[in-house]
Amino acid sequence: MAHQEKATSGVEWRITLEDGSSKSLVPEAGPVSRIWAGLGGLIAGLVLKVREFLRRAWDIGVDDPRKVIHCLKVGMALTAVSLFYFMRPLYNGLGGNAMWAIMTVVVVLENTVGATIYKCSNRVFATTLAGFLAFGVHWVASQSGQEFEPLITGASVFILAAATTFSRFIPSVKALFDYGALIFILTFSLVTVSGYRVDKLFDMACQRISTILIGTCLCLLVTLFICPIWAGEELHVLISRNMDKLANSLDGCVDEHFDYNDEHKDSDKQPDKKLLGYKCVLSSKATEESMAKFARWEPAHGRFNFKHPWQQYLKIGASMRSCACCVAALNSCIDSENQAPEFIKKHLSNICLKVSSSSSSVLKEVAKTIKTMKRSSSIELLVEEMSSAVQDLQHEIKSLPKLLSPPEVLHPESKETDDTTSTIHLLDVIPVVTLASLMIEISSRVQAIVETVEELAELAQFKGEVQEKAKQNQPNINRIVASQLNDDQQTVKALES
Amino acid sequence: MAHQEKATSGVEWRITLEDGSSKSLVPEAGPVSRIWAGLGGLIAGLVLKVREFLRRAWDIGVDDPRKVIHCLKVGMALTAVSLFYFMRPLYNGLGGNAMWAIMTVVVVLENTVGATIYKCSNRVFATTLAGFLAFGVHWVASQSGQEFEPLITGASVFILAAATTFSRFIPSVKALFDYGALIFILTFSLVTVSGYRVDKLFDMACQRISTILIGTCLCLLVTLFICPIWAGEELHVLISRNMDKLANSLDGCVDEHFDYNDEHKDSDKQPDKKLLGYKCVLSSKATEESMAKFARWEPAHGRFNFKHPWQQYLKIGASMRSCACCVAALNSCIDSENQAPEFIKKHLSNICLKVSSSSSSVLKEVAKTIKTMKRSSSIELLVEEMSSAVQDLQHEIKSLPKLLSPPEVLHPESKETDDTTSTIHLLDVIPVVTLASLMIEISSRVQAIVETVEELAELAQFKGEVQEKAKQNQPNINRIVASQLNDDQQTVKALES
Repeated sequence: MAHQEKATSGVEWRITLEDGSSKSLVPEAGPVSRIWAGLGGLIAGLVLKVREFLRRAWDIGVDDPRKVIHCLKVGMALTAVSLFYFMRPLYNGLGGNAMWAIMTVVVVLENTVGATIYKCSNRVFATTLAGFLAFGVHWVASQSGQEFEPLITGASVFILAAATTFSRFIPSVKALFDYGALIFILTFSLVTVSGYRVDKLFDMACQRISTILIGTCLCLLVTLFICPIWAGEELHVLISRNMDKLANSLDGCVDEHFDYNDEHKDSDKQPDKKLLGYKCVLSSKATEESMAKFARWEPAHGRFNFKHPWQQYLKIGASMRSCACCVAALNSCIDSENQAPEFIKKHLSNICLKVSSSSSSVLKEVAKTIKTMKRSSSIELLVEEMSSAVQDLQHEIKSLPKLLSPPEVLHPESKETDDTTSTIHLLDVIPVVTLASLMIEISSRVQAIVETVEELAELAQFKGEVQEKAKQNQPNINRIVASQLNDDQQTVKALES
Repeated sequence: MAHQEKATSGVEWRITLEDGSSKSLVPEAGPVSRIWAGLGGLIAGLVLKVREFLRRAWDIGVDDPRKVIHCLKVGMALTAVSLFYFMRPLYNGLGGNAMWAIMTVVVVLENTVGATIYKCSNRVFATTLAGFLAFGVHWVASQSGQEFEPLITGASVFILAAATTFSRFIPSVKALFDYGALIFILTFSLVTVSGYRVDKLFDMACQRISTILIGTCLCLLVTLFICPIWAGEELHVLISRNMDKLANSLDGCVDEHFDYNDEHKDSDKQPDKKLLGYKCVLSSKATEESMAKFARWEPAHGRFNFKHPWQQYLKIGASMRSCACCVAALNSCIDSENQAPEFIKKHLSNICLKVSSSSSSVLKEVAKTIKTMKRSSSIELLVEEMSSAVQDLQHEIKSLPKLLSPPEVLHPESKETDDTTSTIHLLDVIPVVTLASLMIEISSRVQAIVETVEELAELAQFKGEVQEKAKQNQPNINRIVASQLNDDQQTVKALES
């Protein structure tokens, strides 16, 4: 492929140059023309790569136009903050420290509102704290004479930098103040050490803080009022979309096993993209966690209050991953080469499809509950349907032995003789039994998902016409929610401490 | 609990104060003393919390002393760079721009060598590139007259900031140059905009670059020569430790089911920490990815060459997670309330334990291969043992029907009558059959892990006494490795493009 490209571009280059050399000469060309051809190939390859890169970039932009909007927001904020340089009165007012405003904008303006607020508040808080502390240290150092001043300054920088760096390893600090700790070290070192040389330290510190405030305010304005992207909303949508994906992949997986296999057994097995939805669920832990981390910094927006229980979304995510794990096992058990005989598969096909479709419709209903933030009136019915389907499946499996031909059990010694003809071993049933018990396990995990979503509905006070009825019917879930609430409060306490 | 604490600390406070008030007065105390008591309780609570926080911080330090060393390194580097302020000749040489050296140290010095080098090279490269570009833009702008200068400067800042921000969304750029893109925007904006006010722009740019270089060099020296922590080594150790954990949790899980249950059926089921090792495997994806990202920036160190195939570790991690998923399913199938009758469990106990112990010893051997970076001479034998154990298990299951009592199959109509007495339904066998087929699935995934590790051994040229023999015996794996190599080269190409 690469060789072909090179050759083609080599030919093109010769045509462009029109130096009259004949085509047959190329294979035996001299070193100069070979270098030219090589160069041409290189350039053509580079052009191809650049074009490919741009095409991919274009795709990313088309897929999610909000990314493009974010870029325009960054450009706009930076151009706006540049005005402090271009307008003399503004520039003079800041005493040439406008640089810090630019730096703040570049470093602080993030994709989501939550991340921007997190960085802004960390930056302002840490800068102020470190500024005052550095001021105190500088005062002590300057009182202790020329000789001791660098010593005290150096020692304080060493100790505070080491201690603050260490604090970044502590999970509770890292979750809330990781960026702040960095800025604290930065500001403290800069101010303390500058204090040794700069006379008007207080003026400098004030100007620095005010420029940072200007940058921060600009970032907040831009992020909050121009097409805001809320981390909380992203998390909310991610969870409900993943729930749908999980439902689809569960459904598709079982469908494919029973229907698709029958009809298109010989055609190429192209794994449907839908089937692999569970992989998205399995791999979205990190995204969920960072979104939840930023979402807690966001003010009330849209349908979400300030104290929306974002942590509960992480629990829903965890229960979904535990279900997705089972779907993955189911998938590989379906892909395996040991398949049950057709008539056993047919025998169980209907009930298996019923279990999978009822489980996936529970999941879809729950996804809808999250999406609309309204308690569903039909969820109990669907869960009951799922349970009864599971019971039917168990019953159906109970009746399987009738299908196993009696001779095997009656005359075990005759087994080896007509092994290949009519008897069916338990071994043949294993795939279908495994499938069934995995599906039973999946339905119990779906139940767990329903419970975590119920907790969310309770915590976030979802509205719905069946609120009272649900409370009466589900003392069990309410008890879970109550204990959950306790756990939650303890978690919050642990985080705060 | 909280109330109790408060009360206790309230008493303690009274004793400390010794104001003579009697104990019986407390419940009916006046508002002042109640406020005092409340304050005392608050302070005591705070002290408790701080003590708890410090205790946890201490634990973190004791668990991993290298974190403490990292903190000391940060402190040291910052104090060293402060010397540029304290020594007059150094300070004058930099024209007061020593600030940038401090900032570089704070921002760039990371926990691992790879992360530091990644940030250093990104920072230097991006600063230089942006500096030159900004210089060009400034020259063009200054040639176009007083009116157009701010316009051109502003437009260039807008366009480049937006474009560079967008490039950070492209995966290949994000993987290698995320930090560089940020620094590029920062430097470009600062230099272009400053150019409008500062006359000696070139001097300023040079000083800035030289101070950044000083900070960078200091960071590199500190990170490389004082107790270096290599991201590659961390990844290597993480993978082999996770492999051991997986082996232990597989082993323990099956052991617990067959042995533990028999002997301590009534005692409280305390899930052993070892059993939950598979959860570590499932949740370490993000760590592995960031380690692999940084490891590729590291020079050759210890047993690792510069081009050590770090990406292959990610593949091993993925195959381990797919196996851990099955272990999770196995775990929940063991935890479920449906248990097979004791005599069936006993019947299968030995062979199941054999499969699990042979699978886990394969995993342990593979972990040892990674740890020592030497091909194992016994791995083939162990894999064969595992396969034969799996075959035995399949055979054993084949013979299960003999155990199912005949009456059930012979007289299906009599089933309902003596349901509870002597007959055993297929339903009873399901848990054990599921367990068995999950274990078969797990062993096939263990096989997949062995293959990914073989690929690693091939790519990283692990030594071993059986290298030649292994090559002869495993044409299949060699073929996989060859196709793998192709894939890898394509991945590298894709990343480079």
